[in-house]
Amino acid sequence: MYTSFFTLAMVLMAAAVLRAQAPAAPIAPPPIRSPEIAADGRVTFRIAAKNAAAVTVGIEGSPPRPMQRDDKGVWTLTTEPLEPDFYGYSFNVDGSRVFDSANPGLVPNLLNPRSLLHVPGNQSAPWEIQDVPHGTVHRHVYRSAIGGDTRDLFVYTPPGYDASSSTRYPVLYLLHGFSDDASAWTAVGFANIILDNLIANGRARPMIVAMPLGYGAPEIVRTAPRDEAIGNRNVDRFRDMMTSEIIPAVERSYRAAADRESRAIAGLSMGGNEALVVGLNELDRFAAVGAFSSAVRAGAEERFPHLTSSANAKLRTLWIACGTSDGLFEANRRFRDWLAAKQIKFTPVDTPGAHTWMVWRRNLAAFTPLLFK
Amino acid sequence: MYTSFFTLAMVLMAAAVLRAQAPAAPIAPPPIRSPEIAADGRVTFRIAAKNAAAVTVGIEGSPPRPMQRDDKGVWTLTTEPLEPDFYGYSFNVDGSRVFDSANPGLVPNLLNPRSLLHVPGNQSAPWEIQDVPHGTVHRHVYRSAIGGDTRDLFVYTPPGYDASSSTRYPVLYLLHGFSDDASAWTAVGFANIILDNLIANGRARPMIVAMPLGYGAPEIVRTAPRDEAIGNRNVDRFRDMMTSEIIPAVERSYRAAADRESRAIAGLSMGGNEALVVGLNELDRFAAVGAFSSAVRAGAEERFPHLTSSANAKLRTLWIACGTSDGLFEANRRFRDWLAAKQIKFTPVDTPGAHTWMVWRRNLAAFTPLLFK
Repeated sequence: MYTSFFTLAMVLMAAAVLRAQAPAAPIAPPPIRSPEIAADGRVTFRIAAKNAAAVTVGIEGSPPRPMQRDDKGVWTLTTEPLEPDFYGYSFNVDGSRVFDSANPGLVPNLLNPRSLLHVPGNQSAPWEIQDVPHGTVHRHVYRSAIGGDTRDLFVYTPPGYDASSSTRYPVLYLLHGFSDDASAWTAVGFANIILDNLIANGRARPMIVAMPLGYGAPEIVRTAPRDEAIGNRNVDRFRDMMTSEIIPAVERSYRAAADRESRAIAGLSMGGNEALVVGLNELDRFAAVGAFSSAVRAGAEERFPHLTSSANAKLRTLWIACGTSDGLFEANRRFRDWLAAKQIKFTPVDTPGAHTWMVWRRNLAAFTPLLFK
Repeated sequence: MYTSFFTLAMVLMAAAVLRAQAPAAPIAPPPIRSPEIAADGRVTFRIAAKNAAAVTVGIEGSPPRPMQRDDKGVWTLTTEPLEPDFYGYSFNVDGSRVFDSANPGLVPNLLNPRSLLHVPGNQSAPWEIQDVPHGTVHRHVYRSAIGGDTRDLFVYTPPGYDASSSTRYPVLYLLHGFSDDASAWTAVGFANIILDNLIANGRARPMIVAMPLGYGAPEIVRTAPRDEAIGNRNVDRFRDMMTSEIIPAVERSYRAAADRESRAIAGLSMGGNEALVVGLNELDRFAAVGAFSSAVRAGAEERFPHLTSSANAKLRTLWIACGTSDGLFEANRRFRDWLAAKQIKFTPVDTPGAHTWMVWRRNLAAFTPLLFK
């Protein structure tokens, strides 16, 4: 939710006395305040669990931290000053993961929904709402013939976008990771805010960003993502969805430029692999590909049977980024070696960080300025 | 999230064996399955809390139900067959409210975020996604001069809406309740799905639905909603926002018909009171007003100083609904008595139910067919 930006701050300041609106609707105040953010960036987490034996808090990018129980059964942990950013987190109470019920900020996820922490202090960061013109996020519900289901598609249009004008915009297709839903890039990745800011600063061209549900085979979520057959079906069907459903729908519904130089595809983790498989196999449709912490599989030869150095003439950008602390770093290095052996040009980007949204927000902010120039 | 419609079903079927996508991204499977919905509508809730002394599950519209612990520390409750619908719920573990971490379905809320249960079985219900043309939900981020903050506005456009055509659509302004955020009417109220279905069936006219953040004084969320000064400031400033920010923005950005016969305002609970105060004081702007379980205050004389029976000539619809089990039922009855004494015509609607979204979804489905005819 965008509202988390300001409502989070609002509720973090929750007064001790909060009464319900009406007798019929006794909306209980959060009994404790969590997370509480000090001016220096120290964050105090609290959770009431009076009979628990052990409680930890797991903050995105850090190992779980043990919390301390007070005499009322409230468990507390105060961190060192955290770098200003957004962080997902959850508690673990005697082995069970739970959200922070005192915090309305949420990270939607199909397997691992969690709470969202905002540590302010870096107002110039590209993911912070700034006083610039804002684009619009459109949520579409559509029937997928290939998926045999009803699913959603989020589309960002930039500030000033006018459906009745003759201006045509380039389109970035932006893909989420395994276990995310289609809202992830806006709800957690703040792609719309990042684009608002980059466009306002003249760093990125005004563009449409289409964010589809990225499961060609949705059963991958409840089965084994490492199962090669399901994994291949997932990406192969997603490729079909992209070419026969998603791209046509976007170009029919928006003022989208419909040439390959005006299309880019990028994604994170599972979506990074999809961006590579779709993009590098569809060079007549895309001129730029971005892979963020991509879940590239071994056996690149099989996934890219027609890829040769002739691709260099078509690829304006092939951007392959990974955090150096990411368990996928070696897999990405192997993939880069394979590309290099085939004499395919690409931009290798090693960043600090692990498999986190902090890395992917920065990836998006670094990648989009390269597009459509 | 719309995705909850189908992903909920997907994850409810979660296989026991679910491995992480990559070593770097160990996405743990939900250790238990909850909620599990039987074919007959019985729902089994489960939560692991091995050291807890008492655990209950609170389902929207029902009193909390005690759960039973098994020898592994998993607490379980199976309900009687529940009427097919969507229900918010949360657990209470030794006095602390927690979400269902095994369920990706969420009810966003600033004070009381909770989990969302879907009991299928009534596919013809207006809030169920049907195979009909779907409209689009647009999320805008804007700076409010009156609020002094950045906030969001959700706008539904009906199927076939074309920003470049000359067709103009009527607009329903639809307001959420206390502690909700601006996403509530789509994320929990399924207003977009309800309108899709009513429009497809010819029961409602194609219309735009604008769903703003409804706090004129956002501090009401963290202070005392019963504080009369803050409550009045909240609604008075919201009225200013409506007339000087929200209506102009909607009519500038959309193909909206800009006459009073083409504007309606409705809301639930706090938003129902706002719909009454804004609508009945702005009869030059609105021809229809709907109050769902409205949090009407005593002292109507003060809130409607200029309201006389001359309003009858302007008001096409004044629709005042409340569940008979709602604690606000008596307050609504008093308000109706006050209107009747002033000889102002209205449609009283008594429905079964308490202060719940089950009531409000039905209210919306009954109210919108009356509009713009």
